Amino acid sequence: MQHHNHFLSLNLQLPPAPEPKGVYTPLLQVGNLIYVSGHLPVNYDGTLHRGKIGQDIDQEAGKLAARQVGLTILSTLISNLGSLDRIKRVIKVFGMVNATTDFEKQPYIINGCSELFVEIFGREFGIGVRSAVGVGSLPEKVPVEIEAIFELSED
Amino acid sequence: MQHHNHFLSLNLQLPPAPEPKGVYTPLLQVGNLIYVSGHLPVNYDGTLHRGKIGQDIDQEAGKLAARQVGLTILSTLISNLGSLDRIKRVIKVFGMVNATTDFEKQPYIINGCSELFVEIFGREFGIGVRSAVGVGSLPEKVPVEIEAIFELSED
Amino acid sequence: MQHHNHFLSLNLQLPPAPEPKGVYTPLLQVGNLIYVSGHLPVNYDGTLHRGKIGQDIDQEAGKLAARQVGLTILSTLISNLGSLDRIKRVIKVFGMVNATTDFEKQPYIINGCSELFVEIFGREFGIGVRSAVGVGSLPEKVPVEIEAIFELSED
Repeated sequence: MQHHNHFLSLNLQLPPAPEPKGVYTPLLQVGNLIYVSGHLPVNYDGTLHRGKIGQDIDQEAGKLAARQVGLTILSTLISNLGSLDRIKRVIKVFGMVNATTDFEKQPYIINGCSELFVEIFGREFGIGVRSAVGVGSLPEKVPVEIEAIFELSED
Repeated sequence: MQHHNHFLSLNLQLPPAPEPKGVYTPLLQVGNLIYVSGHLPVNYDGTLHRGKIGQDIDQEAGKLAARQVGLTILSTLISNLGSLDRIKRVIKVFGMVNATTDFEKQPYIINGCSELFVEIFGREFGIGVRSAVGVGSLPEKVPVEIEAIFELSED
Repeated sequence: MQHHNHFLSLNLQLPPAPEPKGVYTPLLQVGNLIYVSGHLPVNYDGTLHRGKIGQDIDQEAGKLAARQVGLTILSTLISNLGSLDRIKRVIKVFGMVNATTDFEKQPYIINGCSELFVEIFGREFGIGVRSAVGVGSLPEKVPVEIEAIFELSED
């Protein structure tokens, strides 16, 4: 698994790994799975990307926010595991989109995160199962919250 | 496990297994579990069942849509695994209902899927844990999206 | 694991373990994990705590409802497992908050459940991963629904 070397070669900037905003831990290992808490889109200066899609921000901004959630998840993984090398693959992405009640393009939004994971882990290991759903509201009025499960390699 | 023979004896019509509408895979095996992506209600002609419950369609149409999501999940399972024989049991159903904000009967809606799983797998193996929740919006304005986990038999 | 003795020493009152309101089981063991269905806030007399946060009830009532969901989950665990002694730790909490679309304090609400789990299991074993999200609607118009995963000890 040379995921971390590949990650470094992409020269991606990561936001700071967020401190929990409640009584939970950002990730937890269970057997060979890493459960990741719901993450919000943290900007490079540590602030949050805010706004409801279809009301405050548009689809493209929403997709960028989902990518930023993905980068924030990577920051949590690296901060806790030291690197991405022990990550074998993406198992699951659960994408929650804060949008108006007539919004229909949740998969397009969450692709912002999924396409990032493919950049990092490749198509073989970067694509897992997924649900993309429109929620009623999200913490701090962020446009996207994503939780995920990753598999660790055995070694 | 004669689940597939029993399934065939029921003469149920299945919709076509849907192609992913984003960067994800319809199902993924992790150990002896099958994680299934969020599925939408696909009609027999490949179109989607649309409408928000309490606004565009009523409860009965919503419950039928949940059953159709269940049939679509079965189609994905059979398309990827060849048959239902390796499925041991339902572990989890997460049912997301696209309804007006005053809707209170999400469990009734999701029973449309759960009752189908009992028809196929019986009460011993067809009933797992479940959450039924009302979401703000769903892809393509479908009334129901469901994700699931199944257990595979050891052999 | 002296979780049950500690639980008894706290003299907490538990609501009755709820009967399923649909075709599902309240919990299911998969390997050494206990999957718990979405639970609602059951009062000590068996009725449900009702109301949408920001419309019918305020934040403090919502947080108390989340604590009541936690007590209801404990009631289900004890009713099905006999005690809390076989529970090793909290793995995951998924908290769904029924609030107005401009609500931003979902983590504060779900802390009502998470803080209870820390009282029972301590900080080492009571804190898992978590998502806190605002949904569009919930069964019986309850303010909070929570599903969870616990790990069993090996013995």
